Amino acid sequence: MIIIMKPDASEEQINHVTDKLKKLGFGVHLSKGIERTVIGAIGDKRLLASENIEVLPGVSEIVPISKPYKLVSREFKPDNTVIKVSDKVSVGSGEPLAIIAGPCSVESKEQIIEIARAVKEAGATMLRGGAYKPRTSPYSFQGLGEEGLKHLGLAKKETGLPIVTECMDARDLPAIVKVADIVQIGARNMQNFVLLKEVGKIKKPVLLKRGPGSTIKELLMSAEYILSEGNRNVMLCERGIKTLETGTRNTLDLSAVPVIKELSHLPVVVDPSHGVGLWKYVPSMTLASVAAGADGLIIEVHTHPDEALSDGPQSLTPDNFKKLMKEIKKVASSIGRKM
Amino acid sequence: MIIIMKPDASEEQINHVTDKLKKLGFGVHLSKGIERTVIGAIGDKRLLASENIEVLPGVSEIVPISKPYKLVSREFKPDNTVIKVSDKVSVGSGEPLAIIAGPCSVESKEQIIEIARAVKEAGATMLRGGAYKPRTSPYSFQGLGEEGLKHLGLAKKETGLPIVTECMDARDLPAIVKVADIVQIGARNMQNFVLLKEVGKIKKPVLLKRGPGSTIKELLMSAEYILSEGNRNVMLCERGIKTLETGTRNTLDLSAVPVIKELSHLPVVVDPSHGVGLWKYVPSMTLASVAAGADGLIIEVHTHPDEALSDGPQSLTPDNFKKLMKEIKKVASSIGRKM
Amino acid sequence: MIIIMKPDASEEQINHVTDKLKKLGFGVHLSKGIERTVIGAIGDKRLLASENIEVLPGVSEIVPISKPYKLVSREFKPDNTVIKVSDKVSVGSGEPLAIIAGPCSVESKEQIIEIARAVKEAGATMLRGGAYKPRTSPYSFQGLGEEGLKHLGLAKKETGLPIVTECMDARDLPAIVKVADIVQIGARNMQNFVLLKEVGKIKKPVLLKRGPGSTIKELLMSAEYILSEGNRNVMLCERGIKTLETGTRNTLDLSAVPVIKELSHLPVVVDPSHGVGLWKYVPSMTLASVAAGADGLIIEVHTHPDEALSDGPQSLTPDNFKKLMKEIKKVASSIGRKM
Amino acid sequence: MIIIMKPDASEEQINHVTDKLKKLGFGVHLSKGIERTVIGAIGDKRLLASENIEVLPGVSEIVPISKPYKLVSREFKPDNTVIKVSDKVSVGSGEPLAIIAGPCSVESKEQIIEIARAVKEAGATMLRGGAYKPRTSPYSFQGLGEEGLKHLGLAKKETGLPIVTECMDARDLPAIVKVADIVQIGARNMQNFVLLKEVGKIKKPVLLKRGPGSTIKELLMSAEYILSEGNRNVMLCERGIKTLETGTRNTLDLSAVPVIKELSHLPVVVDPSHGVGLWKYVPSMTLASVAAGADGLIIEVHTHPDEALSDGPQSLTPDNFKKLMKEIKKVASSIGRKM
Repeated sequence: MIIIMKPDASEEQINHVTDKLKKLGFGVHLSKGIERTVIGAIGDKRLLASENIEVLPGVSEIVPISKPYKLVSREFKPDNTVIKVSDKVSVGSGEPLAIIAGPCSVESKEQIIEIARAVKEAGATMLRGGAYKPRTSPYSFQGLGEEGLKHLGLAKKETGLPIVTECMDARDLPAIVKVADIVQIGARNMQNFVLLKEVGKIKKPVLLKRGPGSTIKELLMSAEYILSEGNRNVMLCERGIKTLETGTRNTLDLSAVPVIKELSHLPVVVDPSHGVGLWKYVPSMTLASVAAGADGLIIEVHTHPDEALSDGPQSLTPDNFKKLMKEIKKVASSIGRKM
Repeated sequence: MIIIMKPDASEEQINHVTDKLKKLGFGVHLSKGIERTVIGAIGDKRLLASENIEVLPGVSEIVPISKPYKLVSREFKPDNTVIKVSDKVSVGSGEPLAIIAGPCSVESKEQIIEIARAVKEAGATMLRGGAYKPRTSPYSFQGLGEEGLKHLGLAKKETGLPIVTECMDARDLPAIVKVADIVQIGARNMQNFVLLKEVGKIKKPVLLKRGPGSTIKELLMSAEYILSEGNRNVMLCERGIKTLETGTRNTLDLSAVPVIKELSHLPVVVDPSHGVGLWKYVPSMTLASVAAGADGLIIEVHTHPDEALSDGPQSLTPDNFKKLMKEIKKVASSIGRKM
Repeated sequence: MIIIMKPDASEEQINHVTDKLKKLGFGVHLSKGIERTVIGAIGDKRLLASENIEVLPGVSEIVPISKPYKLVSREFKPDNTVIKVSDKVSVGSGEPLAIIAGPCSVESKEQIIEIARAVKEAGATMLRGGAYKPRTSPYSFQGLGEEGLKHLGLAKKETGLPIVTECMDARDLPAIVKVADIVQIGARNMQNFVLLKEVGKIKKPVLLKRGPGSTIKELLMSAEYILSEGNRNVMLCERGIKTLETGTRNTLDLSAVPVIKELSHLPVVVDPSHGVGLWKYVPSMTLASVAAGADGLIIEVHTHPDEALSDGPQSLTPDNFKKLMKEIKKVASSIGRKM
Repeated sequence: MIIIMKPDASEEQINHVTDKLKKLGFGVHLSKGIERTVIGAIGDKRLLASENIEVLPGVSEIVPISKPYKLVSREFKPDNTVIKVSDKVSVGSGEPLAIIAGPCSVESKEQIIEIARAVKEAGATMLRGGAYKPRTSPYSFQGLGEEGLKHLGLAKKETGLPIVTECMDARDLPAIVKVADIVQIGARNMQNFVLLKEVGKIKKPVLLKRGPGSTIKELLMSAEYILSEGNRNVMLCERGIKTLETGTRNTLDLSAVPVIKELSHLPVVVDPSHGVGLWKYVPSMTLASVAAGADGLIIEVHTHPDEALSDGPQSLTPDNFKKLMKEIKKVASSIGRKM
């Protein structure tokens, strides 16, 4: 941590800061420049609320040197994390691209089984489908709940596809882990720290979606919550952020892929469906995600988008998904990625 | 709901849309313009996922006519909601300005009692203080939990000030409502719909903070969750939003005050401390909040900001708070607001 | 400037950086921490593109110590700048609040004279009105040009009010300065550096509007362009920034007032009309601007908003402006500000 | 245009609106719903400032039906525009990918010729380099001006590469068009409407960069300015927008590629260098741009990034650019795009 003093900081104020730092167990390193004095505090920043230094008289600014996260950082673990989901499916660099497809919501037994078969046939390696749905409006379809979980279990039995489904409430977790192979934390719950701690205690992999108003750093901090409770199998999901642009539902921040890969060892999955919000833009952004280096994709597919209970406009039909899978393979192969 | 067709939509596509609307129970009103056909769907939009129309071939855009919220809207209830917190304290238009002050976190029995006395003496009408703290980092102070609630109970006994404290987990709610006079839902949980439903079932007033990446409309939708469960005593809190500006922690969106007052009957409280994130900017933004028409203020005060376990940099000292209270009174009186 | 090296930076890389710094004339100060080495470069940062250090192998990050602007900074000039506009009107702290009112565009001789009289009668101290209009669409009214300037000249003669009008093109400047008492640089031209240099060479005060996508720091850098060419009479104008909120045209960032006043000696004017974009929200945000400490206000007033050629929806009628002026006086007086 | 009335709008207010519309030459179509009356105005919206209707009593909202731009729209011209730059180089769908490479600034004759040769050898089809530089700080290198143009002329003579260079000031245009094959309008001048009109009158193609705080719709409106003056050869450039994310200089909005291609017939070029701001993220975002369907790329290359006078950190070395070109070819070929 570096403490930058104000140009007019007095000798007394500088001493006050260095005294406080020493009392907190830091080594102190003073550097007097032409305009200002700069104080280096040597020691583990994570011991300390830097805010307590920031408020001292004469202090202009604090510059952290250490990163605020540890377990998720590439410095802590240089090798890529590979997450084994089932005998056949793993997610991570060097592994075949993971393709998670399916409807936004589980709507009925027939619907989820029909779609599961269709996406499997097209080449998907996992099935998505929400039983518990976080909806902006209390009047929108809120998901089938436990019944939806049962349907997912049947679809899994039928197709063998591992299941990705969302948990919104710690109290539902025991029922969810019985069916789910990957537990999803939705974008709106990215900073639901209570829930993060709970999924940190389970043994199933977690798919953590980036909040639409959150930075990559905040996403990593939320993942740190999960890892610090013991669950090291977290995959991060870029699904679009809110920006000034209104031509798409969100702005898919594909540069998050190389940025996360530099900062962290965790795998990165991209959700182009939520990223753009309109099915006709999904194919180009899917291919762009592959070229950017994503380890997996999560794509909404529905057999009847005009009857979907949620997210119809951003869902591909099985036919369009099938066509897209062929293009995904070509682009993946062009960058040397297995499928 | 209005459906705008594409310029090149065929007769068949137009018929397909009108047929579907009729089947869904809508009256249909066709208007052929020079460039496009526009279809008016007459009936209650809330019956229908407009998305199912949006995906039909030939449809360019859907324009909703009804608002997506109902119970929170001024159209539903034209009169301002006034929330009675205790015998002495109410929050709402026409009532004296509510002044909620106190530390970010409850740190000890002594700390909270000392600060409670100081803010009461300066003129605050309620005490704030967090026992459960949502922190970006798992390594930051997470609050004293139940012990913190006990300390709040003592501070209330000591000063008579009603208590405002945050709930992060539905499972803590029974313990919290024993002490709290107002239950706070924090900004990061604004779209934790599970929690919203739970506080919709209690009888205590709720202070719902706007998420840093959320719009006013989304805030109203979240309030609608609470009201639709039966709890009508919700006050909305503007506490700053994330923007491109980096000179302040957040950007306090004071125009939210007149906008919310036009759209809704619920009271509006402003939190300038989180809005700016630096104590020296708090006084001017507090006075601006009053002038903008806020029904209440929530201000962080700490006796030792340089030892606070959270939010020290944005906390006022009791002395500065006292000075500010005098200025608040002057500005409030200049706009005809009681204190 | 502080250079933070990567945790795994080699001795050789560290030496490379210090050698380069010395060659550039910097004093060098080395501090080895537990995780990283930090290098302090002592000397005037403005001599150097810090980017040339940033790209060296082993460098993690550069932290500037000096601010990138100089002439506009409060460190350079601790006293508030007061700008004399005419014998009667000055703008700055300690001076009476400047009230600039008038239509968005000059539409005709009769229109501008009628409005000028109305705003003068209500208590405005200056007249605004655009002869050259920057419009998003090439098909919108682009202003009357030189004819508009003539009408402004007549309105000034008629009422004695100093004139504020926008310059979009350096080639129009000679004609504009003949009529204008303050030359406005519009929000969209805040980073038109060619134009900034040109108004830096004139002798008339400049009103520099903040770009809707710009930070306060960028605004100060743009002002620095004007001051560095010799014109020290610049007032900064907060007029709303683009954010995620859609309930208002822009989000008026009132915290810009205390932030700018801390960083700079230049006066701050607030434009609530553009800030919110709807006349009914203008009064509360005007009063909030006064309470926040603005040195002046610029408010759109039109006698016939439903026939205005631009910005009708955000214009007050003379009657509403008159009422607002009375409230402005009360709030200004409550914070000890003269009128 | 559709006019949505307030739920409590009176018969008189509705008549007032329809009368005004008729007077303005519109056909009027009334639709009374359960909650509100909706008025369809049939005719060319571009005749009218819809604002003048918006301010009438009883009006809740105006919904435009026609798009605000015309000449740039795909509805106006369904076929893709292909821009012929030279005998060998064209830009547009169906044409080989255009690769524009070179330094941010022209720094000397030797520098630009050396880089021009290097990028040509690697496969670039055009040379970029700024002689006039828009810099946030007045103290940063402002470009060599006319001397820089001369150096660009020599580099063109030497390598045969067409030249892309920026114009900031209409007064420099005659000198620039003598050398430039494509005139660039920089991001900060995207809404410098005076400059847009001037480049609308020249015969050279224009590369129009999206402003960092601008929407796609605003970008299209700015292109409309150029086309409406007669110059139909405009290519649009996505170069990153300002968002809440701080891990990259900007957020490259790649979904702008499919969105623009749907709305407009103009070619789209992507600038990943400015989009991310750090050379190490440039390769993945370049490949993503190709996969997303861009018609061209503009990439910063410098032989000595640590001595560049601007944008060193985001410049590739010729070696890295050469490697990237090979990968570009593979991805381009995987999506069936010629090179």
